[in-house]
Amino acid sequence: MELTARIEAKQRLIDVAAGRAPADLVLKDVRYVNVFSGEIRRGDVAVVGGRIAGVGSYGAPNEIHLDGVVCPGLTDAHIHLESSLVSPAEFAKAVVPHGTTCVVTDPHEITNVMGTDGVEFMLRATEGLPVDVFFMLPSCVPATPLDEAGAELDWTAIDRFYGNPRVLGLAEMMNAFGVVHDDEAVLAKIAAAERSGKRVDGHAPGLSGGELCAYVGAGVQSDHECSDPDEAMEKLRLGQYIMIRDGTAARNLEALAPLLRGKAAERCLLCTDDKHPIDLLEKGHIDYILRKAVACGADPIAAVTAATYNAAQYFGLRDRGAIAPGLRADFTVFDDLEHFRVQAVYHGGVCVYDGALAPFAPPENDPLLREKALDTFHVAHIAPEDFAPNGSQGVIGMIPGQIVSTDEGRAERPDPANDILRIAVIERHRNTGHIGLGYLKGYGLKTGAVATSISHDSHNIIVVGATAEEMALAVRKVVENRGGITVVRGKEIVGDVPLELGGLMSDTPLTEINEKLEAAKRAAFALGVNEGIDPFMTLSFMSLPVIPALRLTTRGMVDVMTQRYI
Amino acid sequence: MELTARIEAKQRLIDVAAGRAPADLVLKDVRYVNVFSGEIRRGDVAVVGGRIAGVGSYGAPNEIHLDGVVCPGLTDAHIHLESSLVSPAEFAKAVVPHGTTCVVTDPHEITNVMGTDGVEFMLRATEGLPVDVFFMLPSCVPATPLDEAGAELDWTAIDRFYGNPRVLGLAEMMNAFGVVHDDEAVLAKIAAAERSGKRVDGHAPGLSGGELCAYVGAGVQSDHECSDPDEAMEKLRLGQYIMIRDGTAARNLEALAPLLRGKAAERCLLCTDDKHPIDLLEKGHIDYILRKAVACGADPIAAVTAATYNAAQYFGLRDRGAIAPGLRADFTVFDDLEHFRVQAVYHGGVCVYDGALAPFAPPENDPLLREKALDTFHVAHIAPEDFAPNGSQGVIGMIPGQIVSTDEGRAERPDPANDILRIAVIERHRNTGHIGLGYLKGYGLKTGAVATSISHDSHNIIVVGATAEEMALAVRKVVENRGGITVVRGKEIVGDVPLELGGLMSDTPLTEINEKLEAAKRAAFALGVNEGIDPFMTLSFMSLPVIPALRLTTRGMVDVMTQRYI
Repeated sequence: MELTARIEAKQRLIDVAAGRAPADLVLKDVRYVNVFSGEIRRGDVAVVGGRIAGVGSYGAPNEIHLDGVVCPGLTDAHIHLESSLVSPAEFAKAVVPHGTTCVVTDPHEITNVMGTDGVEFMLRATEGLPVDVFFMLPSCVPATPLDEAGAELDWTAIDRFYGNPRVLGLAEMMNAFGVVHDDEAVLAKIAAAERSGKRVDGHAPGLSGGELCAYVGAGVQSDHECSDPDEAMEKLRLGQYIMIRDGTAARNLEALAPLLRGKAAERCLLCTDDKHPIDLLEKGHIDYILRKAVACGADPIAAVTAATYNAAQYFGLRDRGAIAPGLRADFTVFDDLEHFRVQAVYHGGVCVYDGALAPFAPPENDPLLREKALDTFHVAHIAPEDFAPNGSQGVIGMIPGQIVSTDEGRAERPDPANDILRIAVIERHRNTGHIGLGYLKGYGLKTGAVATSISHDSHNIIVVGATAEEMALAVRKVVENRGGITVVRGKEIVGDVPLELGGLMSDTPLTEINEKLEAAKRAAFALGVNEGIDPFMTLSFMSLPVIPALRLTTRGMVDVMTQRYI
Repeated sequence: MELTARIEAKQRLIDVAAGRAPADLVLKDVRYVNVFSGEIRRGDVAVVGGRIAGVGSYGAPNEIHLDGVVCPGLTDAHIHLESSLVSPAEFAKAVVPHGTTCVVTDPHEITNVMGTDGVEFMLRATEGLPVDVFFMLPSCVPATPLDEAGAELDWTAIDRFYGNPRVLGLAEMMNAFGVVHDDEAVLAKIAAAERSGKRVDGHAPGLSGGELCAYVGAGVQSDHECSDPDEAMEKLRLGQYIMIRDGTAARNLEALAPLLRGKAAERCLLCTDDKHPIDLLEKGHIDYILRKAVACGADPIAAVTAATYNAAQYFGLRDRGAIAPGLRADFTVFDDLEHFRVQAVYHGGVCVYDGALAPFAPPENDPLLREKALDTFHVAHIAPEDFAPNGSQGVIGMIPGQIVSTDEGRAERPDPANDILRIAVIERHRNTGHIGLGYLKGYGLKTGAVATSISHDSHNIIVVGATAEEMALAVRKVVENRGGITVVRGKEIVGDVPLELGGLMSDTPLTEINEKLEAAKRAAFALGVNEGIDPFMTLSFMSLPVIPALRLTTRGMVDVMTQRYI
């Protein structure tokens, strides 16, 4: 903002604060959370030009009376927006009624597909939404050298984005091994973020002792992978901020809720990491975490502070996170600090939810970027022969409720009757013709096939099926849809979730995507998929060669512990 | 730092942290304060390349055993280094043994004399000291339009300094009236600091309610002028950080110590503002505040955190403030957290004090800047006639122990026998020949004269005396000395404190300046100065036309309440 504009905005605010001019609106005689003093206080909150002008005694033609508790707007400190399966505008529609006014996203998924065009696409797709979207830049594209992603990004590829004020740093540094072992390319990414004065988020489940010191000392300032309080306290004592995560794929809140009492709470933030449609619709977002945290014994004000001020503080967002003069007028009004039912949401002084969502126009993306996002599948015609047995291959064992797998030896051919299914991963970014083949045990499918272009982290097409014909049809349908999830039975498409944006998201409304997804799930279960397994989410992890024991990539079966093809 | 150098430094640190390489030194099995968890913990602290590599279990050829409590190095969050009357190198020698490793200075005094050359001079004079010196840029030069200072600085004059990584923001915005009344030039200074991502410190004693909201909302983020807990809590609740001040000129710790318990402590910092030689030598620095705070009931760890981590956090100094991997190895080792006796001090991993101060070479200043600092007096010959009565003039009444004054009406001529002394302020920056004349009551001098070039905030020469001859001699001696304090009796110089750097500081060691100053004080008292008055410090405020009731400037006597010459 130009200096003159800054000065004029200040003058307008000062005049209201000092009582010389009327506010745009006044929240009259409300109870509000003061994150600085840790109190619930009562007073008038005057707003002008989207900012809080004053807290005290104010009047305005536009006085709002609220019987709930006014909190600063909620922040999700770490999410991959792609996990909602919908465009950011549709995501915003889903989370604003839950009180979210700010999210920090890592566009890791779409960047693995589209490279830096993915970052650009998401930056454009999040402009002017009723929830402010900030970015951390993907640090690991591809996730490992074994992966065939849509791009390979070193520090030079992403450095220019740090000039964007919505880019706050480098996202979860998953390559803890690389950090701890002095990998120059990895450390260059951290050093470049630091040089720009930005944050570096961590991702290091279980890292401890000297290796944790090395990781923290290298500059990694947060962690969202803690699953027990001792791990969290070790990291916190070494200076990391702890993002308490409770999302769809991983839920650590019950274990970590004790941190939201006392001194440690000052260093805690809240995040979801991944949030699937049904979860957003049925549970909520950060409001759900607050409700559950307090039910688990968290101090309510400490929990609210974690979801607001602490996030702003950590990310250097000095314009938000509290109810105080000069800050953005982002408010979430709860009925109380026990049930956390959202009564109203204000974003930049504008009421965006008061029982109903205020309509807004989704941002227009750049036509060329949109075209690129709609054209990410480059795969030659797939035929049943592509999945034909060609000798002995490894068998991945699936475990209900988990994303780790087991090594089930080898098989010669599919045997659905005995739970040995054909699984394949088809490279789809550059038409290399690479198809990795293997077998899958424990999925349970008796007939038909399931294909998905959500396959972490490179998002090639993963397909599993009882017959080669059904597998080929399922894959062809995914390609025809420009991405998504397909369930096939015989020659029929019995489940179909088109995700046309990068093969990961859709412009369709969230409720609609959710219906399609739940219908497809039912179809998959009807084909025999084991009840303990999420037919698509669990499958989507079978190609991520960083989680033990066996994984299938476009080049074949990988023994994760040795990082070798078998 | 270049990216390559950053990466190499990281690799060196990582290797030590991970146990693959020996540390430069290890504090072995020490008790240390963990500011994140609020605990005293025990462990090994490994240091390499001036940074902390790890905290846990480490060994090194160079193991240090300490029986005290290791704290992060102490920070003075707001000081005018000039108040010590010595050069920054001499100041460093005085404060390092008290555990200070970092100070944030506002070079307000020398900038009123030298303009931005004063900022530049202080930046150079503080390079490479064993205490890190950061800067806030003077916001009010001159302090008021009634003052004749050595410079007039608007935002454009100081903006270039924000590029210096040691410049952290805009110093205490004393012109609260200007802020609250939309003064464009004042708001431009705040807006420019914000645009550079910097902090804006406040100075607004007693400001409250809507005007305080206006001041905070305009962007002023801290205050060090609170003198009671209610005032502090009002400011804290509105989002300001509270710098608890305990220095020479103002001491608010006893009143504010209750803040250093519980939630409010998170938003508190410690500072001295002004620190005179005898105070530094006899009481100490931030260590003294800690000792006194705990004696007043502060939580010891909260007090240490205010003096370390909170300051780093507020000023955005991400490389310090805690004992954690990756941060600077700045340590202050206390015997315990009650007496706060300093056993040792480490600065960037180097022991700079262990009962004795490690010698260091003071930085070489730029020769041209030094020449300028030594040549700030531009005054024509001063004769007794300059102080001759020229009609009825106002009488300033001094009050023992205070810097406010009273309006004692008018007088026609000096009458030392009845405590009516001649007082004059001589413009000394640009040889304008301006001499403001008036009378002073309550100072008590019976014979002789006292002159000083420390006269807030413009630092012209202030002189008071029983006879015009003695006054002229005292002023001439100050000019001859290129600044300082002089006490004259008859034709004899009976007290003499040369302050040749800008008329404010000396290269002389602190103990020597202190001896001269105390000798000069004794000489002044011997001439009759009232015991309740600091002969030089109280006098130095008599020309600051922002403190009621009467003040004398180079242009004459000012009624402060009306801001008019009488």
